[in-house]
Amino acid sequence: MHKTIGILGGMGPAATSDLMMKIIDMTAADTDQDHIPMLIDSNTRISDRTAAIEGKGESPVPEMLASARKLEMAGADFIIIPCNTAHFFLPEIEGEINIPFLSMPLETARLLKQSGVKSAAVLATRGTYLSGLYDKILDSMGIQTLNPDAEQQKTIMSLIYDYIKKGVTEPAKLPRDEIIEITEDLKSRGAEALLLACTELPLAFEIMDLFDESCVDPTAVLAAAAIREAGAELRQAVAI
Amino acid sequence: MHKTIGILGGMGPAATSDLMMKIIDMTAADTDQDHIPMLIDSNTRISDRTAAIEGKGESPVPEMLASARKLEMAGADFIIIPCNTAHFFLPEIEGEINIPFLSMPLETARLLKQSGVKSAAVLATRGTYLSGLYDKILDSMGIQTLNPDAEQQKTIMSLIYDYIKKGVTEPAKLPRDEIIEITEDLKSRGAEALLLACTELPLAFEIMDLFDESCVDPTAVLAAAAIREAGAELRQAVAI
Repeated sequence: MHKTIGILGGMGPAATSDLMMKIIDMTAADTDQDHIPMLIDSNTRISDRTAAIEGKGESPVPEMLASARKLEMAGADFIIIPCNTAHFFLPEIEGEINIPFLSMPLETARLLKQSGVKSAAVLATRGTYLSGLYDKILDSMGIQTLNPDAEQQKTIMSLIYDYIKKGVTEPAKLPRDEIIEITEDLKSRGAEALLLACTELPLAFEIMDLFDESCVDPTAVLAAAAIREAGAELRQAVAI
Repeated sequence: MHKTIGILGGMGPAATSDLMMKIIDMTAADTDQDHIPMLIDSNTRISDRTAAIEGKGESPVPEMLASARKLEMAGADFIIIPCNTAHFFLPEIEGEINIPFLSMPLETARLLKQSGVKSAAVLATRGTYLSGLYDKILDSMGIQTLNPDAEQQKTIMSLIYDYIKKGVTEPAKLPRDEIIEITEDLKSRGAEALLLACTELPLAFEIMDLFDESCVDPTAVLAAAAIREAGAELRQAVAI
């Protein structure tokens, strides 16, 4: 009997559905009943995480806590959060909940370390950069972090907020050339891996056909960790 | 403030994620917070619906009821079910629950009637054929139902159970030619619309690149009805 996965989602809704689909696709299963039970709260009432970290918006903690409690009460055995930036607030939540959380940045950093990666570029929201979330975890594992410069960070933020979160999914409308310039620059500065460390970015990179072997998708890493934790088998191993 | 959509899912998990994604894609929204809150129970402990209708397996009702109660308790305002066959059991469930259900077959039949469709072919599981679910609703609206013959029904059942539910998603591996033969035959018999009346079929038809203007996707019809019921706006109207 598999454990039940709780997904504290809605940050954003498309990333939540993407995580759900990755768990389903990556689980070795032949029938509906072989799949892992999941409870998902796509709570779109959670405030913007970056705005809160910048001190410009309401804290997402009360609604995140309400969702976590709902998932626990409804029978989830552990919780995962398909939003990298939201992990900044995890220390304010996990103490209030009696079931464990799997952390997306931590699982991703572990996989990079196991794979022998020495330096990684982090593509993320302004909130994630400001919080230093990935820098701290990667640093603790001896992996060098390369962040895009201020101008590049603006372009990435715009890709996330002005395109993907607004539902723009036509390949021709996305700023593909600008993103290629950024990823080429990061690679030339020595990045062995590109962490697509905002859950909207793997979606954007797939649409733009830019997801290559240097890209690491923390959503897929989290999906694999959740499948393992739930007691199911992976259809294929996840590698970097 | 939007209503919260409850999704009684897991039948199958991929169809559940597909419904979720369709609701997100079809909602007019510019930020995470514009989207409709959703609670999803992907309850893979629910028994196979077709096996139960054939008298060869356990009833799915107890687990469906448990999920519906969970969704109600967690704050869903209404419930939708991304499994056509499961709607056969709806009369055994809705009386026990204090929030309403939107019915996928009923919403689909209504849209066909509004569109002036006079005859529709139903592609579905053996359970849906045996239950007469679509035949009865379409008949009550004066729409003629055309069912595939026994051999054709077997091929459709195999596409659902031996391919999609087993996670086979490579286009070349699916029985495309056999399905084309069936749809051509149904059209030549007078079907104006092809109802892909098992939630795995729109996925299969998209993979095989067979989703044409004669196809009606009840999952998309249900998504549109749920968006309306939740008080949000559609990005684009749904037409047949």
